Amino acid sequence: MQSSLDVVGIGNAIVDVIARADEAFLAEAGLAKGAMTLIDEATAQSLYQRMPPGIECSGGSVANSIAGLATLGAATAFIGKVKNDQLGNVFSHDIQSLGVTFRTPPATDGPETARCLIMVTPDAQRTMATYLGASIALGPQDIDRSLIKAAKVTYLEGYLWDPPRAKEAFLAAMDIAHAAGNRVAFSLSDPFCVDRYREDFRALAERHIDILFANEAELMSLYEVDSFDDGLQAVRAFCDIAVLTRSAKGAVIVTKNELHVIDAAPCAEVVDTTGAGDLYAAGFLYGLTRGLELGECGRIGAIAAAEVISHYGARPEADLKALIQPALAD
Amino acid sequence: MQSSLDVVGIGNAIVDVIARADEAFLAEAGLAKGAMTLIDEATAQSLYQRMPPGIECSGGSVANSIAGLATLGAATAFIGKVKNDQLGNVFSHDIQSLGVTFRTPPATDGPETARCLIMVTPDAQRTMATYLGASIALGPQDIDRSLIKAAKVTYLEGYLWDPPRAKEAFLAAMDIAHAAGNRVAFSLSDPFCVDRYREDFRALAERHIDILFANEAELMSLYEVDSFDDGLQAVRAFCDIAVLTRSAKGAVIVTKNELHVIDAAPCAEVVDTTGAGDLYAAGFLYGLTRGLELGECGRIGAIAAAEVISHYGARPEADLKALIQPALAD
Repeated sequence: MQSSLDVVGIGNAIVDVIARADEAFLAEAGLAKGAMTLIDEATAQSLYQRMPPGIECSGGSVANSIAGLATLGAATAFIGKVKNDQLGNVFSHDIQSLGVTFRTPPATDGPETARCLIMVTPDAQRTMATYLGASIALGPQDIDRSLIKAAKVTYLEGYLWDPPRAKEAFLAAMDIAHAAGNRVAFSLSDPFCVDRYREDFRALAERHIDILFANEAELMSLYEVDSFDDGLQAVRAFCDIAVLTRSAKGAVIVTKNELHVIDAAPCAEVVDTTGAGDLYAAGFLYGLTRGLELGECGRIGAIAAAEVISHYGARPEADLKALIQPALAD
Repeated sequence: MQSSLDVVGIGNAIVDVIARADEAFLAEAGLAKGAMTLIDEATAQSLYQRMPPGIECSGGSVANSIAGLATLGAATAFIGKVKNDQLGNVFSHDIQSLGVTFRTPPATDGPETARCLIMVTPDAQRTMATYLGASIALGPQDIDRSLIKAAKVTYLEGYLWDPPRAKEAFLAAMDIAHAAGNRVAFSLSDPFCVDRYREDFRALAERHIDILFANEAELMSLYEVDSFDDGLQAVRAFCDIAVLTRSAKGAVIVTKNELHVIDAAPCAEVVDTTGAGDLYAAGFLYGLTRGLELGECGRIGAIAAAEVISHYGARPEADLKALIQPALAD
């Protein structure tokens, strides 16, 4: 059947709180630089109290990718759980106003909408502390079969292993997508997240996933190796398509028969690296769902990632459609 | 007595929602470009629904100035009304984390924390639609006499004439400040606000206020004249100190005996003019409360304004203390 959607994403629905902080603040708060640490409500409150003034923007890893895809002109949907509170309203507005289909019923009781406290250090690196809040209410009951069946690609995040029942939603969606003959993409999310669920993630990457997104640290954590190349050899033996991002070193895209090494796109000033991987995935999946060759998909991803690291926040600000024209013209 | 505070500000406590929009959107929404339009809750909801994705930052005119003063190192306090909701918590966090004394009890019922929907057009001009929300609960009961008595300057905004009882708080604070031998500063806020309350504002400016802040449009509206110079002559006859800002044309500072013409400070790229006047006032009052001469105060204001228009949001992002060093060294 003709797919009516390009990509449906399933992920934690999070509002980011972004502030500038120095290394000393991270150390004193006990946060691992560059990583995502899960925090409970009490810790979220005390950390927020100590944080400098911030700005709030919608976030969430797969949600950021879906926002990027929508900005690029793809037909998209998102499944994730907010609460019916002010921040949940902000998240819903920001994704729906991009034309993304988002109809997961918000939680009406229980914890508040999830937030991610993001400290950006002077080197533009982001360190995240996430309070899952209402995300813990996401479960298989929230999986909208019609959306999964209608989408060429179902995109899932490893972070879904953290809430108690989101994993069931992940697996249900994966089965529906495959039964409908659609592809499943998976992001490893974070090296610490890979540490928490290595066996599950390895099984997914090697046996169930069609398109794997991982950055260098996540890949090396998945296979517990010390070099990118060792990780590359390990993943290449299994994955249909692996999209491996390396920050300023660009990205490597590998399949059974293809290998592409893509340079990072130029960025005048790197302000905040939050969302770089999310937007790389957005650009790549945009190209893929348009039937472009993998190298071209990778170049579009690099351009989208370069835009999002040029400003605070993990959602694109510039007109991505216009920015990627040169890559399409190649 | 030795003042323990430099400036206490009283204003509407507002969270800004900032999005990029084009002229057509403003026209269709019926918003006067560059101005602040008051909207009710239903309009706020329908306008937000039509708005592109945004970012949230703390705002409020005098609150922005107080945040700027605190960033510069001044001892400050703020009086304003939020509700005890998520956005109220954001506002309180952002101002308190700068070291500003903010202890106005939040509303526990009634409308939500005030928000200002800000559309930034490609020319970097901002157009604002404000839902006053919990601000309408601000009244004389919220005036903390000890703060007013302790502050060298009490800074008030014309926007306080919009909520029903904030005007009483304004007048009570003014009397307390003058009785304590302190100075009172007043911002005209917005040309449409001046239209609404011209007679009151003129009486304040001419008989009660020590330091008047106005931009060109507000000054011309106050005296219903067609040229900046006509306004300048009118205001000069009355005001102790008038600080008249003119965007790219810089600012004019006038007293009975002094006249300073201050150039705008350089700004590499003007991104969002929201808060330009608020931060000019912050820089000026910082210099004044340190006993600097008026020209120097004006140059500090120009530097603070140039910083805030270089990014989205009306609160400073850069280290203003460092930025103003050259002006101090003059």
